[in-house]
Amino acid sequence: MSETMQAAVWHGQQDVRVETVPVPPTPQPGWVKIKVDWCGICGSDLHEFVAGPIFIPMDAPHPLTGKQGSVILGHEFTGTVVAVGEGVTNVKEGDFVAPDACQHCGECVTCRDGRYNVCEKLAFTGLHNDGAFAKYVNIPAELCYVLPEGVSPEAGALIEPLATGFKAVREAGSILGETVVIIGAGTIGLGTLMAAKAAGAGKTIVLEMSTARTEKAKECGADIVLNPKDCDAIAEIKTLTNGSGADVSFECVGNKFTGPLAVDVLRNAGRAVIVGIFEEPSSFNFFSLSGTDKRVIGTLAYTLKDFQGVSALLANGQLKAEPMITGRIELEDIVEKGFVELINNKDENIKIIVRP
Amino acid sequence: MSETMQAAVWHGQQDVRVETVPVPPTPQPGWVKIKVDWCGICGSDLHEFVAGPIFIPMDAPHPLTGKQGSVILGHEFTGTVVAVGEGVTNVKEGDFVAPDACQHCGECVTCRDGRYNVCEKLAFTGLHNDGAFAKYVNIPAELCYVLPEGVSPEAGALIEPLATGFKAVREAGSILGETVVIIGAGTIGLGTLMAAKAAGAGKTIVLEMSTARTEKAKECGADIVLNPKDCDAIAEIKTLTNGSGADVSFECVGNKFTGPLAVDVLRNAGRAVIVGIFEEPSSFNFFSLSGTDKRVIGTLAYTLKDFQGVSALLANGQLKAEPMITGRIELEDIVEKGFVELINNKDENIKIIVRP
Ligand SMILES: [Zn+2]
Ligand SMILES: [Zn+2]
Ligand SMILES: [Zn+2]
Ligand SMILES: [Zn+2]
Repeated sequence: MSETMQAAVWHGQQDVRVETVPVPPTPQPGWVKIKVDWCGICGSDLHEFVAGPIFIPMDAPHPLTGKQGSVILGHEFTGTVVAVGEGVTNVKEGDFVAPDACQHCGECVTCRDGRYNVCEKLAFTGLHNDGAFAKYVNIPAELCYVLPEGVSPEAGALIEPLATGFKAVREAGSILGETVVIIGAGTIGLGTLMAAKAAGAGKTIVLEMSTARTEKAKECGADIVLNPKDCDAIAEIKTLTNGSGADVSFECVGNKFTGPLAVDVLRNAGRAVIVGIFEEPSSFNFFSLSGTDKRVIGTLAYTLKDFQGVSALLANGQLKAEPMITGRIELEDIVEKGFVELINNKDENIKIIVRP
Repeated sequence: MSETMQAAVWHGQQDVRVETVPVPPTPQPGWVKIKVDWCGICGSDLHEFVAGPIFIPMDAPHPLTGKQGSVILGHEFTGTVVAVGEGVTNVKEGDFVAPDACQHCGECVTCRDGRYNVCEKLAFTGLHNDGAFAKYVNIPAELCYVLPEGVSPEAGALIEPLATGFKAVREAGSILGETVVIIGAGTIGLGTLMAAKAAGAGKTIVLEMSTARTEKAKECGADIVLNPKDCDAIAEIKTLTNGSGADVSFECVGNKFTGPLAVDVLRNAGRAVIVGIFEEPSSFNFFSLSGTDKRVIGTLAYTLKDFQGVSALLANGQLKAEPMITGRIELEDIVEKGFVELINNKDENIKIIVRP
């Protein structure tokens, strides 16, 4: 009889069950088995719970992983390597790691260009393949990042979401001394804010409607927080920038109005970096770009380079994990104290981490 | 009595008159007077004729030039410096020049950043101030580019429109060896095509519906011309790129469907450069950027650096003015043989140049 473990399995909308499943097998060549330490609940996990399937492949097997239908969620995690497959040389048993979730083909044009985060067959751990809301998970060894000194196991579980904002700031090019607008102070927005401060932003302006998140944004170093319900945000930003608009903006919400807004808050030749996941199209006049030299930069996820950068800034204190962690729960409580809590107390929560 | 000259003056929709106007006065400090040699009719001139006022300031004086209402059109020109204002040192009487049309304030954030083409008070010669469909025109001396050896006066009048496509290619970053899609083979599309070839594009694919312009695109070096009426352009482009999509696209039409199309033809992490002037908003899902690392780059006009680059490539033959020139007319014929001809025989014409 094969060994078993508890895991949080997505079966359908509003149907995530903590149930008994087989422990993953001995890892295949190039893969490793990880004993999970902490795993955070991501906005995308919540989306799959509330409105899924969004990314989870239901109609056909995923082209890279072959996975279809029910899947163990969870991709923001730390853990210990407990078994290595044939040919693995970059990690060994006992290493404590924070894994990159971007399983990729290695053969498409973007993989060949080093941008495997947008691989044409991208398979996210915990969405397109079994994830880490479980005692054990198997992943490709090449995605393991060994945690350096000075980064705690809890903070390690925040590297993945912090890396998304970190890459967003990298994609903007130098923002040294510039006025930066960040739309939304959720997990990604707060991470982006801290990364922008670390990159030498001259002034940071956060747009956020919730009181609790406004406090979080201030705790994470925002110079100004504007509530777009209470003011004309574009006019306020122009006033704060000598009438011109911001140098760069980061859209971290994913609402059909905040996409164009990220462009409208900019000065001519400014850059809008789009991080949000959008469900609806926007009404958008491309002349707002061709009449102004503005740029719009899309960014998805991160690469291991960003894990390394985030770790360096966590170790030196320029990024902080603690303000982000608003809950620590056991795996058996993931539905009630995790998903349901995040729905009922959306504004008060940032990141809930789960101990399997 | 002051001297007079003939000029093509925009008075309103469908109302451009060749009439007698005063010769511009002795140039003010920092300005020069140019005796015009050739001046091309731009798509924006035609737009003002057909559907104006679009850019022409009617309701209030322009913040930089104070101009309001009727204006002498024309901004794509060459000519001889015949008088210089006080303090002018960069050009002298007798210099043969091709002027940059971007009159600017020098004080706003984009001017200070060297991107005066998107000055917050940008005044285009021939739209926001009197232009060059006339015997004489006054312009700021700093906008004069002295034509080098090897560029004819006629070709010189094409530098301005060629500079727009040239800058568009510069804004894309290196396209060396890449697959490039150009949407539209009008003046800007053909200039962009030649600049992309010069920049080492690996494969150039033009989307164009007119037979005459398809021939022009081939004459200008297009590897493949697709007619989006006859095929599924996105599917064809994927087939031509191993299923991935193009590395970079240039939108040179300005239609609400071609904006999003420029994004859709790209591989992940590709770049769409938007050059067209759009009248209507598009339906656009920003997730097509945040899910793919794609970028959208707006570009307006050019700087004098682009005039220098275009001239170098005209001199060495990598850019060609001749295929672009489809008509040479006298100023008195500008309405019938210029604007009306361009409306009636849109597809057969690229650039008509006018001798004042
Ligand atoms: Zn996540
Ligand atoms: Zn790939
Ligand atoms: Zn023009
Ligand atoms: Zn300016």
